[in-house]
Amino acid sequence: MPNLALKIVFHGQNAANFRQGFEALIEPQHQVLDLSDALDRPGERDHYESADVVIGVRLQADMPRPLKARLFHAPAAGTDAVDTALLPAPCTLANCFGHENAIAEYVIAAMLMRHVPLARADQDLRQQRWPLTAGRPGATRTEMGHQTLGLLGFGHIAQTVAHRAKAFGMRVHVANRSPITHPLVDHSWTLDGLHDFMGSCDAVLVSLPLTANTQGLVDAPALAAMRPDAVLLNVGRGAVVEEKALFEALQTRRMGGAVIDTWYQYPSPTQPECAPSQFDFASLDNVVMTPHMSGWTSGTVRRRQETLAENIGRLSRGEALIHVLHGPA
Amino acid sequence: MPNLALKIVFHGQNAANFRQGFEALIEPQHQVLDLSDALDRPGERDHYESADVVIGVRLQADMPRPLKARLFHAPAAGTDAVDTALLPAPCTLANCFGHENAIAEYVIAAMLMRHVPLARADQDLRQQRWPLTAGRPGATRTEMGHQTLGLLGFGHIAQTVAHRAKAFGMRVHVANRSPITHPLVDHSWTLDGLHDFMGSCDAVLVSLPLTANTQGLVDAPALAAMRPDAVLLNVGRGAVVEEKALFEALQTRRMGGAVIDTWYQYPSPTQPECAPSQFDFASLDNVVMTPHMSGWTSGTVRRRQETLAENIGRLSRGEALIHVLHGPA
Repeated sequence: MPNLALKIVFHGQNAANFRQGFEALIEPQHQVLDLSDALDRPGERDHYESADVVIGVRLQADMPRPLKARLFHAPAAGTDAVDTALLPAPCTLANCFGHENAIAEYVIAAMLMRHVPLARADQDLRQQRWPLTAGRPGATRTEMGHQTLGLLGFGHIAQTVAHRAKAFGMRVHVANRSPITHPLVDHSWTLDGLHDFMGSCDAVLVSLPLTANTQGLVDAPALAAMRPDAVLLNVGRGAVVEEKALFEALQTRRMGGAVIDTWYQYPSPTQPECAPSQFDFASLDNVVMTPHMSGWTSGTVRRRQETLAENIGRLSRGEALIHVLHGPA
Repeated sequence: MPNLALKIVFHGQNAANFRQGFEALIEPQHQVLDLSDALDRPGERDHYESADVVIGVRLQADMPRPLKARLFHAPAAGTDAVDTALLPAPCTLANCFGHENAIAEYVIAAMLMRHVPLARADQDLRQQRWPLTAGRPGATRTEMGHQTLGLLGFGHIAQTVAHRAKAFGMRVHVANRSPITHPLVDHSWTLDGLHDFMGSCDAVLVSLPLTANTQGLVDAPALAAMRPDAVLLNVGRGAVVEEKALFEALQTRRMGGAVIDTWYQYPSPTQPECAPSQFDFASLDNVVMTPHMSGWTSGTVRRRQETLAENIGRLSRGEALIHVLHGPA
């Protein structure tokens, strides 16, 4: 039996990031179309409604429905903007990871930056000053490899970071809902030991998704349990860390610093520039502020394209899909 | 037989970096003294001449001689400033490593900095701009883990860097005097294949010592063999890379960039500020310039203290020494 030919639509600007070179990854019998976010150009609505596969990050009541879709595939991990009640009964919702290597590079870069003062050394030497030269008293820096990294959550991202951290010699601590036993982990706590965990680390990485259980999990008492020189990194979701508590802990220097990639306020099409919080984090010098960028690399795009193509091949051959979040009803 | 009690002198400012907490690492019967670089304070010359162990980095004809020394121990890898002809016949010259973890952190930090634009992202977001946010077309960054790291030389430093690079998924190439077969190495060349090696890498790390064979090894043709976007890192010795050829390759942008920690000119006690080259590297924007700092961490100091203490214990017990560069005559 020949494999099914599928009609595949890439919906909107986010999906378009995964479009380049996509045909090379799938069989030639499939049809691939590019649709705008608004689906308001001639024929777009029909194509969306008749597609076998929709690649997109949004499905809301104000939109046409993917009436024929058997696979709605987010090219991202998060599917918060996909209302599964609007999917037809036989449709599977799937997502993509593939960002863990990228996020791990971001995390290790941000941690190393606290130990290796490349920018300052470069600035000095350009002015013929050598204050950090080996052998100078007081010039020794610290080593990341001597420190303890705490992982709050132990999913793909945390495990990928742990693998790299271990290569540097770091001690790895974990706090997780369920107990963890893993060759990369030196010590772990369940969440009732959160404060002990926080106090045991030089750096704490938050990589949790946002759920009812994780919202505000890192609150003022949890931050107060950190060592005064420890740093908090958040690449999960902003609201896992209490906004006001984080701001105040940084402002009053009760913690060593923070590296924040996931925030409390985001830009929108109508407001492309905005502050990432109601609090003035930009007034602080002990935070590195980045715009939800940690996972966004050409490698992530390629790995997600491979996941999308894999599931399209499976659907075409009638095989079980991977990365399924919501099965056919 | 009880272990011998030794008279140990720390000579000069460099050795003094390794002094703090040193007694805790050795047996209590030893005597430890701190001597100035000039050895011109009352009694210093006598102490130097009668010491069993000298810890120092310099022995020159203009100095007193360590007449009784059985161990002259540099607390550093390089012993260029120790004239072995001035050592008494029964004296062993030893050195210390222990800087490889520190240098590996420097190298990985400098490489990651080229992929993860933390400083720029922070600057932007403080002004409420989000150009690098995930999903933005054109915002994808590159991944270090997709690249090939070339190691010119495969000693302690290169192997330690290779271990970390592999954890990120990098491909590791080596060029070395003798052929290398090693689980961390994907492909290796001997030095007659230097140009092929240089052309195969996204980043080339020079960690060679300076010898008659390595001086100027990375010359204009070798640099010209690099990929136009590749970066050269030098943590070995400056003169392994031809000074003028490096400057011109950077100035004309025939290579992607450089990260240089070991230089052509160094400050001296009489001239504490100086340019690191006769060429104006500070005029270039495609070089990161650092002041021979890559190995200088509290961890390096601690590991070297442990080597010094180990050899003092061995000498005291009449056992074979480690890290021997020049045996008793």
